[in-house]
Amino acid sequence: MAGPATYYTAAHASSLDASTRSLVERREAVLGSAYRLFYDHPIRFVRALGTRLWDADGREYLDAYNNVPSVGHAHPRVVAAMAEQAATLNTHTRYLSEPLIAYAEDLLSTTALQNVMFTCTGSEANDLALRIAKHATGNTGVIVTENAYHGVTTEIAAISPSLGGPSSLADWVETVPVSGDFAASVRAAIARLAERGIRPAALIVDTIFASDGVHPLVDGLTDAAAAVRAAGGLFIADEVQPGFGRLGHGMWGYDRYALTPDLITVGKPMGNGQPIAAVMARRDLVDTFGREVRYFNTFGGSNVSIAAAQATLDVVRDEGLIDNAASVGGYLAAALRDLGLTVRDAGLFIGVDLPSMHETLRVVNELRERGVLVAASGADNDSLKIRPPLVFSRADADQLLTELRAVL
Amino acid sequence: MAGPATYYTAAHASSLDASTRSLVERREAVLGSAYRLFYDHPIRFVRALGTRLWDADGREYLDAYNNVPSVGHAHPRVVAAMAEQAATLNTHTRYLSEPLIAYAEDLLSTTALQNVMFTCTGSEANDLALRIAKHATGNTGVIVTENAYHGVTTEIAAISPSLGGPSSLADWVETVPVSGDFAASVRAAIARLAERGIRPAALIVDTIFASDGVHPLVDGLTDAAAAVRAAGGLFIADEVQPGFGRLGHGMWGYDRYALTPDLITVGKPMGNGQPIAAVMARRDLVDTFGREVRYFNTFGGSNVSIAAAQATLDVVRDEGLIDNAASVGGYLAAALRDLGLTVRDAGLFIGVDLPSMHETLRVVNELRERGVLVAASGADNDSLKIRPPLVFSRADADQLLTELRAVL
Repeated sequence: MAGPATYYTAAHASSLDASTRSLVERREAVLGSAYRLFYDHPIRFVRALGTRLWDADGREYLDAYNNVPSVGHAHPRVVAAMAEQAATLNTHTRYLSEPLIAYAEDLLSTTALQNVMFTCTGSEANDLALRIAKHATGNTGVIVTENAYHGVTTEIAAISPSLGGPSSLADWVETVPVSGDFAASVRAAIARLAERGIRPAALIVDTIFASDGVHPLVDGLTDAAAAVRAAGGLFIADEVQPGFGRLGHGMWGYDRYALTPDLITVGKPMGNGQPIAAVMARRDLVDTFGREVRYFNTFGGSNVSIAAAQATLDVVRDEGLIDNAASVGGYLAAALRDLGLTVRDAGLFIGVDLPSMHETLRVVNELRERGVLVAASGADNDSLKIRPPLVFSRADADQLLTELRAVL
Repeated sequence: MAGPATYYTAAHASSLDASTRSLVERREAVLGSAYRLFYDHPIRFVRALGTRLWDADGREYLDAYNNVPSVGHAHPRVVAAMAEQAATLNTHTRYLSEPLIAYAEDLLSTTALQNVMFTCTGSEANDLALRIAKHATGNTGVIVTENAYHGVTTEIAAISPSLGGPSSLADWVETVPVSGDFAASVRAAIARLAERGIRPAALIVDTIFASDGVHPLVDGLTDAAAAVRAAGGLFIADEVQPGFGRLGHGMWGYDRYALTPDLITVGKPMGNGQPIAAVMARRDLVDTFGREVRYFNTFGGSNVSIAAAQATLDVVRDEGLIDNAASVGGYLAAALRDLGLTVRDAGLFIGVDLPSMHETLRVVNELRERGVLVAASGADNDSLKIRPPLVFSRADADQLLTELRAVL
């Protein structure tokens, strides 16, 4: 019997039923070796609503993991907005569209920035933000955290040590630890770049530091941003994971700090599953870039994506989901601490330390067998990542706690 | 009075009605200077169906330009598939999904390749294809055509001379002209790379050479692919524009040549407007990459995108749209030649030479005033690009011809 793993491996093939095994084999034949399936026993979902999913056998699961369907799976307002728009008009942004402009105004009103550019994925947003930062500063250096993940384009994979370790990084990248004196670490990284004749274009951080193990508040982040600016660089807040209210305090992760980013990237929950992402920026940065560089994203900001994004943002506000993230997240975190666990949390982004990778993977897979979805996280896969749709209720939290107690 | 331009400029502000001018100003305030609007007088579309769009005043336009809504704007089968799927389930690919696998099988059956990886945009697909090619070959050189356009990520902008000219290219890129002996040009490019100690990872070409001015058949493309392979590189067919039957002969642009690409990238019309794109590849290339590189695209291959892509592919076949592209495209091209024009065409991808950029932009803007959408194209903007949805009928072609005769 193979040990528990984050992803399905052939070692568990014999424990799958015939129809699942057949699907897995067909899948591997066409999608190939880069694709992964969650769990020792992969799940075939066929339907979802709110915080619930159902598999092909009709079994119900509680979703404490998926951050993309942020206002709940198949939210009727988002579904209706998409369906209506798809039946009406779906073109690119080189024609005038009032709803596109209205959404841009609405989104920017939640920040101190002036311009927004739409893309389809967080990877594209971070890639574009870095292009703008390098163009505006004339510098090439980039500072990221030690286990950062910012996306999968060639450029962004080269600033994402969580994908391939330090050796996979471009030679204009420096990394800093999240723990300790963050501002001092960033100043040291600036100095190391300077020794190689490189000035920083940007410090970019995920403001919940998810891939570094979830760090709700990092001392010195504001000072670090100031240090990068003093060296001629910009501060980019990667809000792809923490953004749109997940942390239960304001719309953005950086709202918990006394700082205004020069660029903000957003994505995942933006359209509740529709592929839409964006870069928000100071107008002067976009002016320079827009005058001198041709950039057009065919699907970025198309009508159906904007309809989905507007409906999602409306639901976040109308259903009070930021407050819900704060109250249910706080309730759940307190209960997890009552179980004697070490918890790092902000709203509905919760990291829970477990004794080892093996124990973490056991818990993840046993919770799956009990109908609850969570994931392993951290550089050593020794913590649980609890990151449900923002409509997660206290009753949902109680169910998760009940099953977790049984497994621990 | 300003001369005609491809994009709206402030020089035409005084000729806009008050509500259009107000929208344009609101738009510029939030989207910033990188965004462009088509035409001296931008159009505000509010509805579309088939080959027709309607503006906010209820005026009808014939679409002879948009290649994304390939099976027609708001095609009821695609709309229904998306709406039904969005109301049912929309998750990522780390759970089992039979429709995802079935679509992958269906798509690959149109090629000689074994694996497919889903992304959201053609830019992401080309970025990933290049990552795979560089990883598999261990080489870094890339050969592209002189005015190539392959996308807007940092890596792909650096192989796209149409965006910023030769000086914008990475130092591992060599360009080749499309005219003349293409295979000899590619061999010379390989030699120039070799002089700098660089071996080719790939030759990548758009198989209709759209941004190079539309070249239906390029002598020596097959030999060029062989030369790159002999030098240790791969041949990548960028089918983002020509693919899915637009050229009226087979599903892919390379089908008109005696060659099998090592990698194929597809996008734009794949989901009739839904943001979905893909890389198809030889299994051995993906095996190496998948074992050694972590790649996951959150929205790539999600359920709604796959539903849209499957419906689109079904419609292409069920409505005989490849044959329609051949017959209506051939009819239209012959009629354009009867007008004494120089035409380069394959199916419903048609380039028409005009005497000058000024004349081309005049024709584009006057056709817009007459309710017909086409665009200027070519490095010097001195040709018309006619590239309608594949449901374009002979009656649509006749309407375009009538208006074009009036304008010329």
